[in-house]
Amino acid sequence: MADQKKLVEEITSMDQDFAKWYTDIVKKAELIEYTSVKGCMVIRPYAYAIWENIQHLLDTRFKQTGHENVCMPMFIPESLLNKEKEHVEGFAPEVAWVTHGGSEELEERLCVRPTSETLFCEHYANIVHSYRDLPKKYNQWVSVVRWEKTTRPFLRSREFLWQEGHTIHATAQEAVEETEQMLNLYADFCEQELAIPVVRGRKTESDKFAGAVATYAIEALMHDGKALQAGTSHYFGDGFAKAFDIQFTDKDNARRYPHQTSWGMTTRLIGAIIMTHGDDNGLVLPPAVAPIQAVILPIAQHKPGVLEKARELRVRLLAAGIRVKLDDSDNSAGWKFSEYEMKGVPVRVEIGPKDIEQGQCVLVTRHNREKTAVALDDLEQAVRKKLQQVRDGLYQKALENRERRTYICTELDQITRALEEKGDGFVKAMWCGDEACEDAVKEKTGVGSRCIPLHQEHLSDTCVCCGKPAKYMVLWGKAY
Amino acid sequence: MADQKKLVEEITSMDQDFAKWYTDIVKKAELIEYTSVKGCMVIRPYAYAIWENIQHLLDTRFKQTGHENVCMPMFIPESLLNKEKEHVEGFAPEVAWVTHGGSEELEERLCVRPTSETLFCEHYANIVHSYRDLPKKYNQWVSVVRWEKTTRPFLRSREFLWQEGHTIHATAQEAVEETEQMLNLYADFCEQELAIPVVRGRKTESDKFAGAVATYAIEALMHDGKALQAGTSHYFGDGFAKAFDIQFTDKDNARRYPHQTSWGMTTRLIGAIIMTHGDDNGLVLPPAVAPIQAVILPIAQHKPGVLEKARELRVRLLAAGIRVKLDDSDNSAGWKFSEYEMKGVPVRVEIGPKDIEQGQCVLVTRHNREKTAVALDDLEQAVRKKLQQVRDGLYQKALENRERRTYICTELDQITRALEEKGDGFVKAMWCGDEACEDAVKEKTGVGSRCIPLHQEHLSDTCVCCGKPAKYMVLWGKAY
Repeated sequence: MADQKKLVEEITSMDQDFAKWYTDIVKKAELIEYTSVKGCMVIRPYAYAIWENIQHLLDTRFKQTGHENVCMPMFIPESLLNKEKEHVEGFAPEVAWVTHGGSEELEERLCVRPTSETLFCEHYANIVHSYRDLPKKYNQWVSVVRWEKTTRPFLRSREFLWQEGHTIHATAQEAVEETEQMLNLYADFCEQELAIPVVRGRKTESDKFAGAVATYAIEALMHDGKALQAGTSHYFGDGFAKAFDIQFTDKDNARRYPHQTSWGMTTRLIGAIIMTHGDDNGLVLPPAVAPIQAVILPIAQHKPGVLEKARELRVRLLAAGIRVKLDDSDNSAGWKFSEYEMKGVPVRVEIGPKDIEQGQCVLVTRHNREKTAVALDDLEQAVRKKLQQVRDGLYQKALENRERRTYICTELDQITRALEEKGDGFVKAMWCGDEACEDAVKEKTGVGSRCIPLHQEHLSDTCVCCGKPAKYMVLWGKAY
Repeated sequence: MADQKKLVEEITSMDQDFAKWYTDIVKKAELIEYTSVKGCMVIRPYAYAIWENIQHLLDTRFKQTGHENVCMPMFIPESLLNKEKEHVEGFAPEVAWVTHGGSEELEERLCVRPTSETLFCEHYANIVHSYRDLPKKYNQWVSVVRWEKTTRPFLRSREFLWQEGHTIHATAQEAVEETEQMLNLYADFCEQELAIPVVRGRKTESDKFAGAVATYAIEALMHDGKALQAGTSHYFGDGFAKAFDIQFTDKDNARRYPHQTSWGMTTRLIGAIIMTHGDDNGLVLPPAVAPIQAVILPIAQHKPGVLEKARELRVRLLAAGIRVKLDDSDNSAGWKFSEYEMKGVPVRVEIGPKDIEQGQCVLVTRHNREKTAVALDDLEQAVRKKLQQVRDGLYQKALENRERRTYICTELDQITRALEEKGDGFVKAMWCGDEACEDAVKEKTGVGSRCIPLHQEHLSDTCVCCGKPAKYMVLWGKAY
């Protein structure tokens, strides 16, 4: 048990220092390694396997809803980036510029894509001519670069992996429906697969994507009470189409501008998983994206028959479609327990000489350390049931954390007091719609507008800040 | 049939102008679209779907042989690139340099990875300490950038997609075995899945990867008799380990340098597929990577019962795990025939009123336009059998082309005459091992050394160029 103690002691407790706890996990669970380029990291096999599972699940949903994958270049010429005024103002300050190819200076400098609206628009202008060419519903899985000053693994890095969907439609209505569909797809994915409850809402004007008519987002609350934007979906209207001169001939022979959307999710989701479900023993992974869903640990594995039985269980679980690992290394049982707790494996299967005698094994669920003896005959079904219980348990726990940390406030003082007394969290409060009040709330209480939830509640008649008539209930919080 | 004629006439005949035929196909089959950045292209949905199939098949093989995926940053600091002398000399002249982040000039410029040996080495130096940490068998799926002067879609572009495997081992023998294993994996993949016969061989010293002890490659012969390198596998010895100071403590407590490999395949493979199997009607896709393996075309689809039956067939083929598309659009049958020939769909399923009466449908294989009536009851099995026949037929045709175009020569004059009389192709001729002779052969005959085949034949005792004793049989050719 010496090994186990050693490992566990190395993680800072989350209550003591949440930020340090986070970076400890990221390193000890072997998710990332730093590199000599600030803000760029190595995504190690275990984290990349989580990302592959996220990719696979999302990509399947994208294809089921009629989207196709493409791949655009990573470089955007400066003149192309400059075409849509708001867009370039939003992104130009934080792009990386390529100025030389080999030993020659380029005639025009190129930025490494921070996002690809401009490239998709250039492409659409080439391939969209008639209503018959619409809609185009494209997506790509790539990395993008934003030259951030402060960086944190997964949460804010200079290069990160993401998917960016870009669609173009004949009518505004179709594009709006697409924007909503993808927001809902993201929300459902987070809740069902990642066990992270989210709030769907619209961003305020000051918080919109550069060039968008409307930006929608899903917001999740982390264990420490800070908010994390987990996905965004933008409606562009025909602004980009006009800037890039994309027109099509409609059924009535008229020339029209099409309407566009874009939407994205990133490797931030891994950060969200860590900070929603993790605990002082390490990662806790939702089964749908866990690289290892069940780990088999033979107890007293030198005793006759134990390893053979463990191998048999492995084959059975594999055949049942469960991602399973058997650790038959010569590390101590204590070391193994703490290693797979650190790695957040949802279900541990213990099998020892006594279990074999009794025709059973013991299942231990990571998030609550609940132990259940199950008959070997029922193994597959029992593990499947446990995996579902883990997902449900994680979701419930995260939901309870969010509810405990959601404060309904009608006055500024109330906000300050709630945050002081109960810690960071979501604040629900009414807003007049005036940007000055949005800024004032942030300045006076520290929480900014996260979104205007689609599901509105009427908390009071007046703005929490100025007392004038309220237009919306806003969800406020401190953001990652 | 007007539509069909129109489409077919738009492709240049391959015998008339192979290069023009190639770019015609690439555009008309909607594989790529050019962008405003020279040498960077949009990979459109149909081509990207081919790449996804290639990825899936290769990735499965990588994982079966114990490799794990990771993701390194796309930027390499100049000082890191400079660490291995031969490597930087090979790549520095053709890299893209990032010099600014936002409005600030960087302290050290960063290149966009042309390949990632240096990043993997930096990482290994951080994580490899003991023999227990070895081997690491990593791979990544990313894009890389090489600032080429002349570019062609898929064959030579400034940005391209690839996988790069990077492994590190305790012993030279293990690393050599890895290099060979991956070369064989690549060859088997090309032959079995892409139906492209390849020659396995070692590159001459002048043609090695920058920094490698030995470079192995698989070489394929395109329809026009030019050679295409389809994959490479490099053995590095401990050169990189020494340059990056990667050391580990071995079982005997001694500090040792580990041995490394790298290996890669790229979107070039799509170019190889086009130029190996394509014809004057368009693409011809090997079934294993075809986005649509079978297309169902209803004949006289307005007649009662036809569309219903076509839909039923689609559901059956889908259930059988075949990638199937039903085209029930109102385009003419002629247009559809030529459209799916252009797209290279391996099997066409025709179903019309007369077929339904007779309880049959007609299968047409793309590569030879062979028609077979099959009983509807046997549909799944019949389509599966046809897909296998297409793969075998394509392979056989490509092999025959290669054999017809392989010339065994013992004198320089013979090479020149063979190329003149029979057209471009592979030349097999003996070589003394002297670089001067290698250069002279190229200068005098136009063919360069492609590789020293692993399967050696003794054609004569003397070098084809200088007449001194021969060391190897070399495969020569003009390369893409």
